[in-house]
Amino acid sequence: MTVPSGGETANTTSVLRIMNERAVYERIRLLGPVSRPQLAEATGLSKPTISLALADLERAALVRPVGHRTGNAGRAALLYEIRPEAGWVIGLDVGRQWVRAALVDLGGEIAVREDVSARSGDAGELIDQLAEIVDTLAAASGGQITNIVLGTPGVYDLDNERLHLAPNIPGWNEPGVTAKLAERLPAPFAIENDIALAALGEQGYGLGADLRHFVYVSIGTGIGMGIIVDGRLYRGSRGAAGEIAFLPMGETDPLAQAADSRRHGMLESVASAPAVVATARRLGITGEITAKRVFDEARDGDPVAVRAVAREADHVAHALAGVVALLDPELIVLGGGIGGHGADVLLDEVRDRLETMTPLGAPRVEVSPLGDDAVVLGALATGLATARALVFDRAIAGAGDVPGRANRP
Amino acid sequence: MTVPSGGETANTTSVLRIMNERAVYERIRLLGPVSRPQLAEATGLSKPTISLALADLERAALVRPVGHRTGNAGRAALLYEIRPEAGWVIGLDVGRQWVRAALVDLGGEIAVREDVSARSGDAGELIDQLAEIVDTLAAASGGQITNIVLGTPGVYDLDNERLHLAPNIPGWNEPGVTAKLAERLPAPFAIENDIALAALGEQGYGLGADLRHFVYVSIGTGIGMGIIVDGRLYRGSRGAAGEIAFLPMGETDPLAQAADSRRHGMLESVASAPAVVATARRLGITGEITAKRVFDEARDGDPVAVRAVAREADHVAHALAGVVALLDPELIVLGGGIGGHGADVLLDEVRDRLETMTPLGAPRVEVSPLGDDAVVLGALATGLATARALVFDRAIAGAGDVPGRANRP
Repeated sequence: MTVPSGGETANTTSVLRIMNERAVYERIRLLGPVSRPQLAEATGLSKPTISLALADLERAALVRPVGHRTGNAGRAALLYEIRPEAGWVIGLDVGRQWVRAALVDLGGEIAVREDVSARSGDAGELIDQLAEIVDTLAAASGGQITNIVLGTPGVYDLDNERLHLAPNIPGWNEPGVTAKLAERLPAPFAIENDIALAALGEQGYGLGADLRHFVYVSIGTGIGMGIIVDGRLYRGSRGAAGEIAFLPMGETDPLAQAADSRRHGMLESVASAPAVVATARRLGITGEITAKRVFDEARDGDPVAVRAVAREADHVAHALAGVVALLDPELIVLGGGIGGHGADVLLDEVRDRLETMTPLGAPRVEVSPLGDDAVVLGALATGLATARALVFDRAIAGAGDVPGRANRP
Repeated sequence: MTVPSGGETANTTSVLRIMNERAVYERIRLLGPVSRPQLAEATGLSKPTISLALADLERAALVRPVGHRTGNAGRAALLYEIRPEAGWVIGLDVGRQWVRAALVDLGGEIAVREDVSARSGDAGELIDQLAEIVDTLAAASGGQITNIVLGTPGVYDLDNERLHLAPNIPGWNEPGVTAKLAERLPAPFAIENDIALAALGEQGYGLGADLRHFVYVSIGTGIGMGIIVDGRLYRGSRGAAGEIAFLPMGETDPLAQAADSRRHGMLESVASAPAVVATARRLGITGEITAKRVFDEARDGDPVAVRAVAREADHVAHALAGVVALLDPELIVLGGGIGGHGADVLLDEVRDRLETMTPLGAPRVEVSPLGDDAVVLGALATGLATARALVFDRAIAGAGDVPGRANRP
């Protein structure tokens, strides 16, 4: 048991009761089906206190008995688990091409997972589509959505309730988008930068588990980074931390002076998927070019495509060297269309160049194992943390007034 | 009163007693001479609990009565304050040119402050000098040094107990330096990057008070950055966060390919004081050149010096644009020989260029008001926080075993 440091006091039984019930609830969630004696041992609380807490939690429909432990000598202990259906979370990854959605119960079990082509032609259509998806998922939960987390490109401006820096989805930067979402969504929701969520996804379900400091760098149509500091998402003062699309790339870079770099950022102008296409064309590849084709041909050994990929590796390593110099992360996870799928031809080159640019040696650079699910998994991870607190507070701590909006999650 | 979130429990009276005494001690420190009723109001604790806590704290020589409140109706209330001499902290800023030192009591009052020319010719001499300075200051405290914080260039490697990346102090990178310091210093000590401490100094005594996220960028003989995230120093996974000397500056930069940039870093090779001198020489300034002379002549309107300073502003703005893209700080504080003293000719130029490189607009860029004291003030600020915890724990919580080394502070 740790003694809380200065500033906190605890002198009323109701505060102690809530503290203890929260601790018991957390342990039941983490330990799975668990007995009173196990809970007493895990929390350091007395058995009578555990019994009182369990009675309260059961009355609030947050936990339930789930049979007896077998195989022990003596009387079989009654086991408890959390009630997964006490809360439901919807996670959405809203991109230009795809909307990826999932419904999860409070136990973390994914009940529905679906990807649909985004109707991202304009913001109104996209909002209609999101509302439809949410209604379908909410129906699958029996209408009991606790909260929703929505990942999207750009920076959510809390003060002005609008998005910035999301040029890849038409209309998505306009004022009023979040107000319209609030009208259409049936539960408190949070908007979060998609790559920030991918970092949380990596923390919850991928390579970032148990790491204190790591970054998730997504390279695809756009370029972005999610930063985990001390195990928590770091957003910066305006929610714009990790906007490495705007990392300066040196004044002599051919595209860095283009008007495009004001909209898309300097790194993004030279290293995103469209930039790979432009580089390939400049190097002499003809016909219909996609970044995927360039990587495929490099994989097959085509020398011009290999050069285009090497150029890409240069830009990526340059950007990562800046990340290492500033943040000194334990791990860099690569994701996105290029970062995640071009790994076999890109990764060694990036690692090698990065090593020459980092005085204490490069940190680990790995490709995300989560593929296209990183953002939606991050939405679920952060949404679940919020949902557990909301559900507990409503049922036990008596915080009945739920805000219409729950940013930040 | 806040209810601590999951994971903590509180069920024994001794834990509650220590929590409450810590809270009372903290409030006495923050509120200055303060009465029982005021403490009861500020902590939410009952008056009998306050009285018990005060009796314990007085017995432990952590607080003392300090007269009565006057001017009130009724019986004048007895006032309490912390005993400043219950602990003493030494802060040291160890640079190539100067060792700056200060002795402070637990109340934060600086008792001694002195700067001496550093004997930095080799590590052994420097260690001798530091030990002498510490002994002198310890004598001034009556021999009661609680702990020492030592700021130095470089990255302290906790695992191998040595410093890296401190090329400007000869011998300082060698193994064994910290072991020798441990032999010679009379109290637990922590080694911290000097610029990280400057950021903490800025937080405690300068422009960073009450800010959640800001950075302190020092530009002088070397270049470095201290990062405050959520009000706390962010060190990175190897203590190397903020080593912006190694920020890539574009492959075509004339000095970036030099062997020197491996030792000093890419940004540092083009933007430190020696780089300003090199630029000025390249642009045609002759004779004995110092960065100070270049800035003085630019201030007087000499066109070549103005060009050299403009080049410097370019490099600094480029680096800060990277900082903004990654960290999105509320404030950038400039310090160091160039950053702190060249402000009048550099600052507007840097702000103007930065504005064009940051899509959401540049954050505030200001010059540190702390001048050369930033590092030593940061050493005191972090040392005092450690000292208060150490003194309380030894006297009240009974944690008698003090480690011989106290990194990290």
